[in-house]
Amino acid sequence: MSKASVVTERVRAVRALMREQRLDGLIVRGTDRYLNEYVPAAESTRVWLTGFTGSAGDAFLTLERGWVAVDGRYTLQADDELAGTPFVPEHLPLGKSIGSAIADLMRAAAERGVRRVGYEPDRTSVKAFEALERAASAAGVELVPTLPSLVELARGPVKERALPLRPVDEASVGRSVAEKVALARGALEAAEVDAYAVVPLDALAYLTNLRGDDFPYQATFRGLGILTRERVLLAVDPERLAPEAREARADAIEWTGPKDWAEGLAGRVGFDPADTTCAVRDAIAAAGAEAVPMPSPLAPMKAKKTPAELEAMRRAFRAADAVVDGVVAWVHERLDAGERVSELDLANEVERRFLASGATGLSFRVIAAAGEHGAIIHYSTPDPERFLEPDELVLLDTGAYYAEGYATDLTRTFLAGSPARIPSARPEQRRMFTLVLKAAIAGMSARLPEGATGVQLDALVRAPLWAEGLDFRHGTGHGVGINVHEAPPRISTRGSDALEVGHVFSIEPGLYLPGQGGVRIENLCTVVPAEGAPGYLDVVPLTFAALDERLIDSDRLTARERRWLEGYRTERARGAASP
Amino acid sequence: MSKASVVTERVRAVRALMREQRLDGLIVRGTDRYLNEYVPAAESTRVWLTGFTGSAGDAFLTLERGWVAVDGRYTLQADDELAGTPFVPEHLPLGKSIGSAIADLMRAAAERGVRRVGYEPDRTSVKAFEALERAASAAGVELVPTLPSLVELARGPVKERALPLRPVDEASVGRSVAEKVALARGALEAAEVDAYAVVPLDALAYLTNLRGDDFPYQATFRGLGILTRERVLLAVDPERLAPEAREARADAIEWTGPKDWAEGLAGRVGFDPADTTCAVRDAIAAAGAEAVPMPSPLAPMKAKKTPAELEAMRRAFRAADAVVDGVVAWVHERLDAGERVSELDLANEVERRFLASGATGLSFRVIAAAGEHGAIIHYSTPDPERFLEPDELVLLDTGAYYAEGYATDLTRTFLAGSPARIPSARPEQRRMFTLVLKAAIAGMSARLPEGATGVQLDALVRAPLWAEGLDFRHGTGHGVGINVHEAPPRISTRGSDALEVGHVFSIEPGLYLPGQGGVRIENLCTVVPAEGAPGYLDVVPLTFAALDERLIDSDRLTARERRWLEGYRTERARGAASP
Repeated sequence: MSKASVVTERVRAVRALMREQRLDGLIVRGTDRYLNEYVPAAESTRVWLTGFTGSAGDAFLTLERGWVAVDGRYTLQADDELAGTPFVPEHLPLGKSIGSAIADLMRAAAERGVRRVGYEPDRTSVKAFEALERAASAAGVELVPTLPSLVELARGPVKERALPLRPVDEASVGRSVAEKVALARGALEAAEVDAYAVVPLDALAYLTNLRGDDFPYQATFRGLGILTRERVLLAVDPERLAPEAREARADAIEWTGPKDWAEGLAGRVGFDPADTTCAVRDAIAAAGAEAVPMPSPLAPMKAKKTPAELEAMRRAFRAADAVVDGVVAWVHERLDAGERVSELDLANEVERRFLASGATGLSFRVIAAAGEHGAIIHYSTPDPERFLEPDELVLLDTGAYYAEGYATDLTRTFLAGSPARIPSARPEQRRMFTLVLKAAIAGMSARLPEGATGVQLDALVRAPLWAEGLDFRHGTGHGVGINVHEAPPRISTRGSDALEVGHVFSIEPGLYLPGQGGVRIENLCTVVPAEGAPGYLDVVPLTFAALDERLIDSDRLTARERRWLEGYRTERARGAASP
Repeated sequence: MSKASVVTERVRAVRALMREQRLDGLIVRGTDRYLNEYVPAAESTRVWLTGFTGSAGDAFLTLERGWVAVDGRYTLQADDELAGTPFVPEHLPLGKSIGSAIADLMRAAAERGVRRVGYEPDRTSVKAFEALERAASAAGVELVPTLPSLVELARGPVKERALPLRPVDEASVGRSVAEKVALARGALEAAEVDAYAVVPLDALAYLTNLRGDDFPYQATFRGLGILTRERVLLAVDPERLAPEAREARADAIEWTGPKDWAEGLAGRVGFDPADTTCAVRDAIAAAGAEAVPMPSPLAPMKAKKTPAELEAMRRAFRAADAVVDGVVAWVHERLDAGERVSELDLANEVERRFLASGATGLSFRVIAAAGEHGAIIHYSTPDPERFLEPDELVLLDTGAYYAEGYATDLTRTFLAGSPARIPSARPEQRRMFTLVLKAAIAGMSARLPEGATGVQLDALVRAPLWAEGLDFRHGTGHGVGINVHEAPPRISTRGSDALEVGHVFSIEPGLYLPGQGGVRIENLCTVVPAEGAPGYLDVVPLTFAALDERLIDSDRLTARERRWLEGYRTERARGAASP
């Protein structure tokens, strides 16, 4: 049976369930029950129902038609994967959210008589639901929770991987679970709540000092936490952690088992509407407690790394620097020797070297883009037939996890072939690289007043590109922690959170010429108090992988930028010399 | 009778009226019935009642106590002017608004039993009232409109100045009233309103192509407009405009007289809650029409100057440049000759020269600050006893109106005494000035993508100061038009509006060292499409008054900044050479 007929068959089954429940519309989400950013295909109801495998995109199904709302990253892929199915892609204009596109589709359907629309309360955040509910109410539509999801009913259960959990050394992250509970207590008291529901899996891993391997490219595990003023109630099978490790944290973690977390909840229980599903909020209320919306007390704490965490991250970043430096040298050797290296070979070599250097896994799929592929910002499938050509630009974006389970994230763009064989780059390659380097330096050397936000840092990074009439259509940077993307902070035009000492984030400007190629330079950075300037903060780099010197046009750098680059090289040499 | 006893007497009279109306609290606003930014003392009920004359600050009076909420600009002045009165100053921490301070005072009073609080609906915007109403409702307080204001009842009427109106040449502003009405029609249709209430006086002057002299430092006149889809109903005494000018605009302006504007209103009438008083909204509703909140259709139109307006503004700015260049030379001559020049002498000379050059009036009170006075950001009272010393920095901030009634605004900081007598500046003076110049150049030479906002431009301007651990605690710039401050745009951390071609605004970074002195450089700029870079915008200066070359340390400038400065000097020489 063709893929399209499989989808048609599945749609038929789901529509039968819709009719049973008197629904004439259904919203099917691309995310999972943890609102994860990276959702394995097997976890996504939208992937199963529509066959569209992109990382973002929700579906809207009526009894007659179907749509999948996708952003500009997936224009071609959605057209391709949805061809022949009952779904048509709904392409979003830049700046429009998937949620508002679904709301528009629902409104339009309401004009054609759609009245009762199902949604997945276990895959929809309270905040997203509230926006949807406003649109529904204005359009005269009734939203009906479908728990379990009709798609899950039609599909049947999937098997969940549940490998043993890994406790992290509490000294190496600087805070015990008990200390984190104590630190959060003030926020719970201020919000007058007795407990707080911890839904995002990276927040749960952070709070419990545990890591897992339940999902590819993540160091987290399935579960849910209830943070009380005294301890964490952890809704995870206790058998997943070795008894001695469980014993060591018995003062701070009480294991409730995966299903029973809501039992016995009472009083006021806080939740963050942005990261908590309607299902969790409803379960709190059903248990007899009052569900109270509040900002997460863990997000800001998790963002501000302790000195021990910074040291653990530095170790991981240094290892990642060495992997990337090594793999670039490996490419040069292969090409100099006349051997062929495909994008997939390169990606595989990166993974091999990460694991050989002690990494527990990758933090995302390697982006290995040769030549014109470098212009595709979210190029994520290394091509086994695309071989690197000497003299062309290769864009390599990599990340992994080491023992403490903090993500690394590092992008380098280099000229394929060693300096002995390819002594110099073409002027246009040098110009692009040097402009991106100027932008990166503006970020990595920025001084800002306390209270400054990501949007201000974002403008400073883009300014050298703007001056040339150039820009890049993605954020300048994102927080990095247990997940490779965390917020706060956001270094982007939407970055309204203040930057703080101990934040760790990427600075990753780029330039992309469609059909020709791309340059991106990504370093991870942190924020320190500015020396000799009270009230000011300095951004400083934490990653020191080599920059391809053939691509740097010093004449385009200011004296200040040249000085900064000298310091970077010195620091890099010092790091390489240390054990 | 002392000033304090006068205030005590007035408070007694107002409290008697409060008792008559069973009010135990009263909010008295600093603004006037047009929500003007600059309110003559005679128009402010708060000035009359409290004796505090600062430009911003509201009062809250109970039957026992009284407060005036003031921001950091007025700490000393409020302490001084309120001493001995029934009022105490309520000093705001940085970032807190006067409105929220009044709400806090009201809440605290509610805890001591205050239940009915009067407010002035003819001096309170709908938006401000709504915030106040939320606070009142939470505190169990009933807000009671007092129309007329109890303060006006106690005070009796004041005489209003009503000089003849001046029609501006419609060719020199690029659009007739009929054209503006036609342009606004789309916004009225989109909001499904039949008419729109034009309350801000600069919007009314803009729409009607009329100017007035009803207030010091403004080119506006008292009145109110109802913009329909076909014409403007103007609530102003028609006798104020010469019959032939009235005749010339009879197609577009219907004179309704000052009092009768609401009569005959019907259908849906839009108003902007941010700039419309509760009294106007209530009058619309009382007339039987529906008052519909919407954003002003005039604000964005007024902000985007036509080519003809830009030409008129350029002419005015060129005249202002010559006045400031001339007055600086005059200072040098006087000081070189051993004569004394006080701050007040300097301010008077500026005004004399503006009027001699054809200005119709000043757009704000001259700021003439010698030495340490330059560190006081809102220094507004030139001291007749403070004489300029050779070798010290003088900060001069000036503005005026010319025929078309657009404000000029220009700040220069210079070393007192001619180069012949004072050939060079001290290193610290040069350092401060050059750093501010770098910031000003960053703004005046910025290239930004279309859609970029004031907050992004603000960050680029501050970055050279941040790099040195320095900053200034005011906005980077403001829109300029018929009022010397208009929005959009705002070049500040709150500047969320996009910059657009034709916007005219100031770039005015500064550095202030308390007790020592200050530097500010302010040029007006506009936005043009970037040549050769589609999708980008360039900021370019519109004012070219001289910069004191003794204060520029070229070694601190980048090659790019030096090139920009060369271009500025060339442009300046060309402007000076033209008639």
